[in-house]
Amino acid sequence: MLASETRVPVSNGFSGPALSPPRSQPTLAYDEIGELLTDAELPSLSAGEASGLMRSGHMTAQRYVLSLLSHINQRDGRIQAWVFLDAKAAMNQAKTLDALAPEQRGPLHGVPVGIKDTIAVKGQNENASSTHIVDLGMPTRYGSTIHDHDDPAPADAAIVSILRSAGAIILGKTATTEFAATSRGGSCRNPRDLSRTPGGSSSGSAAAVADGHVPIAVGTQTGGSMIRPGSFTGTFALKPTWGALSTEGVGRFSISCDTLGFYTRNMDDISLLSEIVRISPGSRNIPPSLRPSSCRVALIRSPMWPKAGPGTRGAWKQAERLLQQAGITVVHVELPKAFNRCYDWRETIVSAEARASFLPQYLQAKERLHSSIRKYVESKEHPSGKAVCEAYDCVSQLRNQWDKIAGEFDFVLTPSVPDEAPVGLEWTGSSAFCTLWTILHAPALNVPGLVGNSGLPIGLTVTGPRSSDSRILEAGRFVAKLFEDSQPAL
Amino acid sequence: MLASETRVPVSNGFSGPALSPPRSQPTLAYDEIGELLTDAELPSLSAGEASGLMRSGHMTAQRYVLSLLSHINQRDGRIQAWVFLDAKAAMNQAKTLDALAPEQRGPLHGVPVGIKDTIAVKGQNENASSTHIVDLGMPTRYGSTIHDHDDPAPADAAIVSILRSAGAIILGKTATTEFAATSRGGSCRNPRDLSRTPGGSSSGSAAAVADGHVPIAVGTQTGGSMIRPGSFTGTFALKPTWGALSTEGVGRFSISCDTLGFYTRNMDDISLLSEIVRISPGSRNIPPSLRPSSCRVALIRSPMWPKAGPGTRGAWKQAERLLQQAGITVVHVELPKAFNRCYDWRETIVSAEARASFLPQYLQAKERLHSSIRKYVESKEHPSGKAVCEAYDCVSQLRNQWDKIAGEFDFVLTPSVPDEAPVGLEWTGSSAFCTLWTILHAPALNVPGLVGNSGLPIGLTVTGPRSSDSRILEAGRFVAKLFEDSQPAL
Repeated sequence: MLASETRVPVSNGFSGPALSPPRSQPTLAYDEIGELLTDAELPSLSAGEASGLMRSGHMTAQRYVLSLLSHINQRDGRIQAWVFLDAKAAMNQAKTLDALAPEQRGPLHGVPVGIKDTIAVKGQNENASSTHIVDLGMPTRYGSTIHDHDDPAPADAAIVSILRSAGAIILGKTATTEFAATSRGGSCRNPRDLSRTPGGSSSGSAAAVADGHVPIAVGTQTGGSMIRPGSFTGTFALKPTWGALSTEGVGRFSISCDTLGFYTRNMDDISLLSEIVRISPGSRNIPPSLRPSSCRVALIRSPMWPKAGPGTRGAWKQAERLLQQAGITVVHVELPKAFNRCYDWRETIVSAEARASFLPQYLQAKERLHSSIRKYVESKEHPSGKAVCEAYDCVSQLRNQWDKIAGEFDFVLTPSVPDEAPVGLEWTGSSAFCTLWTILHAPALNVPGLVGNSGLPIGLTVTGPRSSDSRILEAGRFVAKLFEDSQPAL
Repeated sequence: MLASETRVPVSNGFSGPALSPPRSQPTLAYDEIGELLTDAELPSLSAGEASGLMRSGHMTAQRYVLSLLSHINQRDGRIQAWVFLDAKAAMNQAKTLDALAPEQRGPLHGVPVGIKDTIAVKGQNENASSTHIVDLGMPTRYGSTIHDHDDPAPADAAIVSILRSAGAIILGKTATTEFAATSRGGSCRNPRDLSRTPGGSSSGSAAAVADGHVPIAVGTQTGGSMIRPGSFTGTFALKPTWGALSTEGVGRFSISCDTLGFYTRNMDDISLLSEIVRISPGSRNIPPSLRPSSCRVALIRSPMWPKAGPGTRGAWKQAERLLQQAGITVVHVELPKAFNRCYDWRETIVSAEARASFLPQYLQAKERLHSSIRKYVESKEHPSGKAVCEAYDCVSQLRNQWDKIAGEFDFVLTPSVPDEAPVGLEWTGSSAFCTLWTILHAPALNVPGLVGNSGLPIGLTVTGPRSSDSRILEAGRFVAKLFEDSQPAL
């Protein structure tokens, strides 16, 4: 069933088939006013821009995919964002999409997407209907040798299915740390500085978007796996309210914390995706209600502030100044002491849930699991059932309290990471500033645009009460604009 | 890759290959004292008994599987518990297990298991190691035509992987209602009375165990999908504390409620399974601490009591009398008023989560979804994000309160269902008595043994605080013995 000759493993640098334009297809692309778009310009288009041009016939999906594949071909030998990429299947999908009548074209028509390699993508199916486009077979490896020889999944993960229904092309699988559950980096590099980690565990998804391989990519966060790579690579990263997106088909780490999210290069694409997955209906079309003169923002340094390095401290000061200059009322908020204990409760919950999650792999092949994963199952100091229930209940109370605290403000700003991306690929960096919002189930958005001492990106997180995703998108748009206007382009 | 000729779809009655004994294999089975076991006796063995005989060489796995396949062959045309069954693959697995040295034989060595068809089972893999036994390919259909043509999964669901590691043989997939999310019955019948539903959604798993096809089967519960079929078919059904078992690889309905569970024909097998999946380590070996003279049991009729019919009312009275006769202190407990609201909060949570769960299928093929599933996505009256968060927080408080109330007693007894299984296959029955314990994340165990007015099974539920699984197993053993001693065998 597997068409192995069409598979292009790229872990040792992209070495796909020669990327010549397909015969009998338009090879040119134009912008909205009819100007020719060059190959160099296409990788910087947003998903919204690209799908708009494709829907209106200014550009074919084949042209766009080919251009991105060529860009990846040039770049990914160094970046190694992709662990699996099927150029031929992507071109087939593009061809099918190009044949659709304009009224059948979805909001992500022709947009190639990267999927973190802990998320299932459907393999080819002989009985697939002609309108539901499937690729030739894209295995899921979870960054683990345990799944080295697995066949492709019979069905898409929920999120992949939704994106496909919107017209997206599933281009390939992106690098992840082992089961998205360790901070041991792989070979994926940060496009901003190849000597540094892109962060983890959604390493490849963040790097691919930052480097222009695809306009959007899907990742997951259990601790800080969306926000941290977002900050390190200078991309927008949205981790929505827990539960808003189904994680069916996603590798399990901690059921109470695992959350899907998106990387993009601008806020429009974050809003577009949020509409498509229905976590923020109409968010692109509602008139902005955020008026600086009446806007109150909570600045929360969080109990992790002592971990902040010069990059984050500088960005923090700058953000406060920019908000004030914009006429916004800035309030420094210290969380009640109970929130300090949230970190321990989170640890208890995650370790109990991870134990259940990794028991199958442990029984099957414990020698192939990283020691930190083995430890979840082996640890003699498992939290007792009572301790786990206490952690669940206390965290639940804090969620309610958090909603009230955050609900007093138009939005909350908080650090994303301690500093710029660390040098080296061994360690994917600290999630210290991210875990609180994950366990609180709050939506979190990394807004890039500021820089640290080495000129590398520092993002800050916009957050708010649970289910306030629409509001934090609006706030994110506002903050992104402030940052953008204040900085020379990276 | 698919060896389609070895597939034996059984939806129209079992029509597998001729089941002749394999050549050069022992065709006889003996009990522990060396007496010959007949074909008619093997289907009534428990998993513990059968695997014990196979581990000690009194019986081969091939002999056992063959005997169960023959039993299924005779019975399943009427029962229709199985939607997929691969006789050849099962025999291959048995052969491989028979070749294992005694010290390599696991606690479920050679035991055939039924898996609800919303749970992924790994297909054949050329690269599988010889010690990890895989079958030829067993697709997952979710009781939905949407997955009619899917290939088998590349990896086992977490629970399947754990059972396989313990030496179980994955015999086939059992009937479920659509996505385990409707109460519309299929063609599966109740072995106790073929004119009645076996209950749902885990219809086939309960029926297969009740009818002696397999000693154990796996199901799931989001409302009452484990307990209700357990009561209707007279089987033991354990729904452990939420979160104790990973639901990775299980079709998603409601992330806060979906819980895996087991059907067996006795308490020993429930304990055996609980040990294997590590939710109740050592539960078979700890000396029973439940002493009737100092034992206090809470009888909770629950707010659903007005729905109880004569069968459940009779069983309820009988259980109270039996407990009292055994010297146990019985306390009638009425839950605080706040618990009445739990049903609405559950509704809010399940409908919000189901909306996220079924959005992919809705976008892909809404015309193939049952109207009750479509409604989760289409409903104009979605609970607001705020209402959902309120429901989460209030239910969380009740969980804590429940632990305290239940923690005052050795165990809690409560009805499983309104009455005996309803006549007809259209409707799988009411989950009214089950949903409270599901949303409270409490462990729940259906204990069969009493009967209703038509002589059909009525079970009662043993429950307790979250994470008290070990304790309710011990209580279940006690209650089961009481019921057993009081009744003529069904």
